[in-house]
Amino acid sequence: MKERILTGDRITGKLHLGHYVGSLQNRVSLQNEYETYLILADVQALTTHFEHPESIKQNLRQVALDYLAAGIDPDQATIFVQSLIPEIAELTTYFSMFVTVNSLRHNPTIKAEAKERGFSDMYYGFLGYPVSQTADITFCKATLVPVGEDQLPHIEQTRKIVRRFNQLYKPVLLEPKALVGEVPRLVGLDGSQKMSKSLGNAIYLDSTREEVQEKIQKATTDPARIHRTDPGHPEICPIYAYHQAFRKEGSAEIQESCRKGQIGCRECKGKIAQSINDLLEPMRDRRSKYQHDRKKIDEILMAGTEKVRQVAKETMQEVRDAMSMDYFS
Amino acid sequence: MKERILTGDRITGKLHLGHYVGSLQNRVSLQNEYETYLILADVQALTTHFEHPESIKQNLRQVALDYLAAGIDPDQATIFVQSLIPEIAELTTYFSMFVTVNSLRHNPTIKAEAKERGFSDMYYGFLGYPVSQTADITFCKATLVPVGEDQLPHIEQTRKIVRRFNQLYKPVLLEPKALVGEVPRLVGLDGSQKMSKSLGNAIYLDSTREEVQEKIQKATTDPARIHRTDPGHPEICPIYAYHQAFRKEGSAEIQESCRKGQIGCRECKGKIAQSINDLLEPMRDRRSKYQHDRKKIDEILMAGTEKVRQVAKETMQEVRDAMSMDYFS
Ligand code: SF4
Ligand code: SF4
Repeated sequence: MKERILTGDRITGKLHLGHYVGSLQNRVSLQNEYETYLILADVQALTTHFEHPESIKQNLRQVALDYLAAGIDPDQATIFVQSLIPEIAELTTYFSMFVTVNSLRHNPTIKAEAKERGFSDMYYGFLGYPVSQTADITFCKATLVPVGEDQLPHIEQTRKIVRRFNQLYKPVLLEPKALVGEVPRLVGLDGSQKMSKSLGNAIYLDSTREEVQEKIQKATTDPARIHRTDPGHPEICPIYAYHQAFRKEGSAEIQESCRKGQIGCRECKGKIAQSINDLLEPMRDRRSKYQHDRKKIDEILMAGTEKVRQVAKETMQEVRDAMSMDYFS
Repeated sequence: MKERILTGDRITGKLHLGHYVGSLQNRVSLQNEYETYLILADVQALTTHFEHPESIKQNLRQVALDYLAAGIDPDQATIFVQSLIPEIAELTTYFSMFVTVNSLRHNPTIKAEAKERGFSDMYYGFLGYPVSQTADITFCKATLVPVGEDQLPHIEQTRKIVRRFNQLYKPVLLEPKALVGEVPRLVGLDGSQKMSKSLGNAIYLDSTREEVQEKIQKATTDPARIHRTDPGHPEICPIYAYHQAFRKEGSAEIQESCRKGQIGCRECKGKIAQSINDLLEPMRDRRSKYQHDRKKIDEILMAGTEKVRQVAKETMQEVRDAMSMDYFS
């Protein structure tokens, strides 16, 4: 039996190369080895987007389409919609009985994100994120969660909640493990640390060839290079970072040519645009199969959700039994 | 069309005369005038009883039986089980996105109860009680909630959450009103302010004639009365409080006889034991109809829950639509 993985995305926008490099690429290769559950986390997206839920609706199918385009195989992986699994909300309620407010306040990820968003007074649902994440993972009996080093405290809190539940009632929930891997971060087109929608510095997975070329040509480079023969500093250039990410073999050569002033930025950009387009080309093919077939995507999401819902119902039965809440059976 | 009321009890133990005087009596008379929904709040009971959920299971049918015995008519009122309505957990999740932690911390009832229970670090679920209460009331479109004066801040927070939801999305939820009434508090057999299970000073609704007589005879009276002719102080005597609560016509006479030393405590107690037994006698009759028919009680609870679940599903449909979460319709 394959181990079950839970992974997925908050539905806050369509996916870009940063998502691909950071997680999606990895998921595509994991789907063969593990039973992969992919959560479209619309409820979690509400914690920050409750004022504009219509954006979540717009992006839901888009993200599903990005998954399929990137190579997620709906016959292998199961894509489902978080809000259509009421058992997640029920489990969240049960866990919240024995998780203290202070343990949530002191969660490093919550603290950091609250600071980042400038929340002086947190929303109740935002504070409870580690509780609902525990419900996401446990309702479907996932045992592995792919994360980066920095998310380990989060998984540790999940494990604590599971252990507490199992000790209070009966050991019906599985304690998940972190599948720690590198989560490479892709720099933005403007050279800022992170490619992100909100910074407007992203190349989306649904870009056309021309969009890729244009965005790359407009990207920031080493400002010291004015003439083709000026020696460059690839370590500060996002284009070089893309060479490293997408043209592993060729990046050493670029580094040398740039430093020695033997390649122009335009040419260097042309090469990486080509490589990115080579990466996106098969995605475009897969995308075109689904793009105009909303019904097909809906079928995939509904079938995935239905499958996961069955697992949810079984888990809930066990949970109610463990908690002596099996009143009429 | 009759207005809909939501009322009910946390399932923490069988009901006693304090519950009858404080709310149950009132509900029995309201059930004709209003469409009455009675919630068996097992989830809310978990906020304080999560370590012993088996006690909730034991008490669930007992409380239902107490309702039926007291005169709740299952053909008029609808009794249902909170945990079997997952929509309540879902709504709680949605409301929690826009309710701040500080507004919950400053809720006077939460503050008072946390202090009473000596919580220095509150449980997350406990802190969220006003949010889940709002879900209890709104999922079933109740417009009236019978409460005492002291609970008005609570209903005000509920109304605020509903207004915020309706303003953020669409006005699909009804803003409930408090049906403010007297909530008479019954003193305990030991003379303490409140009859309560945990103080061991209660007369339960399922008491036999003999139990009532025995408990009343053992009850505290005015300690200054040693001889029948000693003048008494009925205002400090729980027995006199019971005369006021259950023998309205006769209580003035008792007061006078007690003050003048014209009645013995034993005789005085005999009178009130008789009145309480007169009150409980028809309850015993109704109780005996159900007591040994667990199947009948289960049928009533399952039918009530099923009926309410339909309302819940309709509300949830409207809520999802209002929040642009009607993805596949
Ligand atoms: S040559 Fe390439 S790596 Fe060097 S600065 Fe120009 S774009 Fe960047
Ligand atoms: S006579 Fe009745 S009211 Fe007076 S002290 Fe005795 S029991 Fe109480």
